[in-house]
Amino acid sequence: MPDHDLDLLFRPRAIAVVGVPSTQEGPPFPFFRGLLEMGFTDETSEAPGRLYPVNPKLSTYQGLRCYPDLRAIPRPVDYVICAIPAAAVPDLLEQCIEKGVRLLHLFTSGFTETGDAARAELERRIIARARAGGVRIIGPNCVGFYRPAARVAWSPGFPREPGPVGVLSQSGGHAAQLVREGGLRGLRFSTVVSYGNASDLNETDLLRYLAHDPDTSLIGCYIEGPRGGREFFPALREAAARKPVVVLKGGLTEAGARTAASHTASLAGTAAVWDAAIRQAGAVRVGDLEELEDLLLARQFLGRLSGRRVGIVGAGGGNVVQAADEAIRAGLEVPPLPAEARAQIARFTPIAGTIIQNPLDTIAENWSEAFGDTLIALGGTGAVDMLIAWLELGWAVWKYTGATEARIAAAVAQLARARTETGLPLAAVFRAPPDPEAWAHYRSLAARTAALRIPLFPSIRRAALALARLAAWPAGGER
Amino acid sequence: MPDHDLDLLFRPRAIAVVGVPSTQEGPPFPFFRGLLEMGFTDETSEAPGRLYPVNPKLSTYQGLRCYPDLRAIPRPVDYVICAIPAAAVPDLLEQCIEKGVRLLHLFTSGFTETGDAARAELERRIIARARAGGVRIIGPNCVGFYRPAARVAWSPGFPREPGPVGVLSQSGGHAAQLVREGGLRGLRFSTVVSYGNASDLNETDLLRYLAHDPDTSLIGCYIEGPRGGREFFPALREAAARKPVVVLKGGLTEAGARTAASHTASLAGTAAVWDAAIRQAGAVRVGDLEELEDLLLARQFLGRLSGRRVGIVGAGGGNVVQAADEAIRAGLEVPPLPAEARAQIARFTPIAGTIIQNPLDTIAENWSEAFGDTLIALGGTGAVDMLIAWLELGWAVWKYTGATEARIAAAVAQLARARTETGLPLAAVFRAPPDPEAWAHYRSLAARTAALRIPLFPSIRRAALALARLAAWPAGGER
Repeated sequence: MPDHDLDLLFRPRAIAVVGVPSTQEGPPFPFFRGLLEMGFTDETSEAPGRLYPVNPKLSTYQGLRCYPDLRAIPRPVDYVICAIPAAAVPDLLEQCIEKGVRLLHLFTSGFTETGDAARAELERRIIARARAGGVRIIGPNCVGFYRPAARVAWSPGFPREPGPVGVLSQSGGHAAQLVREGGLRGLRFSTVVSYGNASDLNETDLLRYLAHDPDTSLIGCYIEGPRGGREFFPALREAAARKPVVVLKGGLTEAGARTAASHTASLAGTAAVWDAAIRQAGAVRVGDLEELEDLLLARQFLGRLSGRRVGIVGAGGGNVVQAADEAIRAGLEVPPLPAEARAQIARFTPIAGTIIQNPLDTIAENWSEAFGDTLIALGGTGAVDMLIAWLELGWAVWKYTGATEARIAAAVAQLARARTETGLPLAAVFRAPPDPEAWAHYRSLAARTAALRIPLFPSIRRAALALARLAAWPAGGER
Repeated sequence: MPDHDLDLLFRPRAIAVVGVPSTQEGPPFPFFRGLLEMGFTDETSEAPGRLYPVNPKLSTYQGLRCYPDLRAIPRPVDYVICAIPAAAVPDLLEQCIEKGVRLLHLFTSGFTETGDAARAELERRIIARARAGGVRIIGPNCVGFYRPAARVAWSPGFPREPGPVGVLSQSGGHAAQLVREGGLRGLRFSTVVSYGNASDLNETDLLRYLAHDPDTSLIGCYIEGPRGGREFFPALREAAARKPVVVLKGGLTEAGARTAASHTASLAGTAAVWDAAIRQAGAVRVGDLEELEDLLLARQFLGRLSGRRVGIVGAGGGNVVQAADEAIRAGLEVPPLPAEARAQIARFTPIAGTIIQNPLDTIAENWSEAFGDTLIALGGTGAVDMLIAWLELGWAVWKYTGATEARIAAAVAQLARARTETGLPLAAVFRAPPDPEAWAHYRSLAARTAALRIPLFPSIRRAALALARLAAWPAGGER
């Protein structure tokens, strides 16, 4: 199937959710709530999209008319979300074929991944019938797709604005975490597909689609399989030649592979094969989901970096020693502070309780002009290619009384000023202690840094790793 | 100086804080607030300890009578906390000698660590005069000591109950983070000393003290130096032969060492030397402050582990694949689930949407009997030496409506039941998403797991690493 057909699949005009819960207590079914939140609405509306709940026991669901089955829906349906048991899927599929449904998402699980022969056979029969009937399938055993430009989300709380990042994820949980938590830091998505058992649409199809999708300029993958076998590697090479591609491979250990087989019926392959294949393709491999989120965020905001020399300011003596060690371990360089910059900073920085080096520890509050001036002096030396500002927002040992909205805004303004005056790429770090108030500050800070395209990291280790990867992006990768 | 003299130093009956702020607005000075919170009180009280603020501009401070200088205090003072500028320290020291003060803590910085020759000379003169006058010094450039049994804390918010963990830390920030954040998870301390420039009491003195202290049964170190040179390694060997010792070394890279020199005037040494020396001593080296906190916590609650085979339950498909990979990478073994246990669990677990393997993904809520039964069935196989329960408390993709105090309590009760019924060491994981409410749940969960001596970790990676280290504790270490 050519790529443009997938594009059509991901732009449904009308959606049916089959198997909404019979009990209407509690919060609405996440699929439904996600679609409502994104702007899908009832059948009487022409725009922006029509939504049909299906459950034979209900006449309405969440205020919308509810249908006993797909056949009863009076108008065309492009996309069906299926949340009924596996045994009922064949009948639903017949209805989809009759109605000319383009795409069926099987949230339903209990197929090949169980290891049960009869259930695997049922999956094979469904896929064969769907192929014959012209219905494409996502899944089974996944959460479907999120495409903010088409107002489709599988869960509430996802960003409504679209962005450049396309994602294919064999795990729905991983995809949701990436969208939600990356979203807080400013990560924005074109299309995110959770594809589960990959029985029809597999990672190779999706990767090819994202490689050619004009709305996608950066690709992230979480893969347990692949189901498409060795086809995947040429597709990866082709994608990485067009766009930056980051790959997280799950199931690289024997125990992980055994678990992946039970999760999504995947044959996981060895670490050595994957490592070599991803490197040869010009893509970048990361070790866990946090690293995937971090690298996509850094790449979205900063692009490639032209050098590895970092200047670091903050936050406390032990912390700057750690910052130096972490930066070096990640593969960055931490050049000494040139004497001229040292003299300049010493003019407005006390000698006691500070470290006027690189990394630099100042007692200037993050929201002060002096903090911005310190970054500017460090960045203006010509000795560094990028800046990291480790903020503590008044949460350090001695204060614990610092952050307010006004101070957070002022701190971010100092970062923006430093970036403008130095012309250097700049990242921020805020390690929130395990305190609800600190995490409220984290969210506020993240929203403000995101608006200015400054990547924010929850630890110096994570910041250093992501920036080192940007600086070492493979030469064979995208141009 | 023999060890029992240090012990006396750390049990002051009366404390003077010299240099309390002249402005009484805002929250009280952390040193003062810490001591008040721990139960030190004014001079009129005999018990539990007397506290004297000193500032010539004030007649009272925080409701206590304030003295113009040390000489004016009418009764003996054992411990002086000094927060006045470096130039004023020699005069204060003379007053300490006159008054028979045992221990002077120089919070004051601006000495050798600045790289300035005159300031380094001032530090040398102060130390020489203190030695001659019989006053021991902590610092300069540090935050002093915390000893809950003696009601001494340098900051508010530290646990009031004592415990088995002794810590020496060249960074006050690191020490405070360890006490506060480890404290939330149940880490409890005998004595924590932040020793800064280590001009008098150095890491070797402190390590020897903790090695012989009957209240300390587990030792953690953060070291940039050592100032005591090669003396430190025999002391480390001796300590590790008596008690488990965990060491975090800061400044292992060239840039880190350069920063450590400016932080605490330390000569940091190379990674290879430290790695070999720590290993040969029978101590355990960790890579960052989080790992130090994690390993002390795990060791405090679980002791050594007799095997490396782990059984893992939860939380979500992608997550259990990751859990398997992380456990193996950390050095644990993840044996397959025996057929009998699989059959037993399958009797009460749906086949769809679950993974009945090890790691195991169940859709049972953490607070349900089924969750406890799953842990018990996995742990009862004889195939594993320990259990990890990865909790999600209803924060997973589909729910986001789970945790309440009652449910958190019920989840912890299931953990306790599983531990009792299997007799296996058990650890919990809760990865709080970046949401204030989730961190409120983390804190509640941490308080409950701590009360039951269950170590709680914020990620599977951190749990796996700490447990793998417990299982691989060096044979040459403490018996």
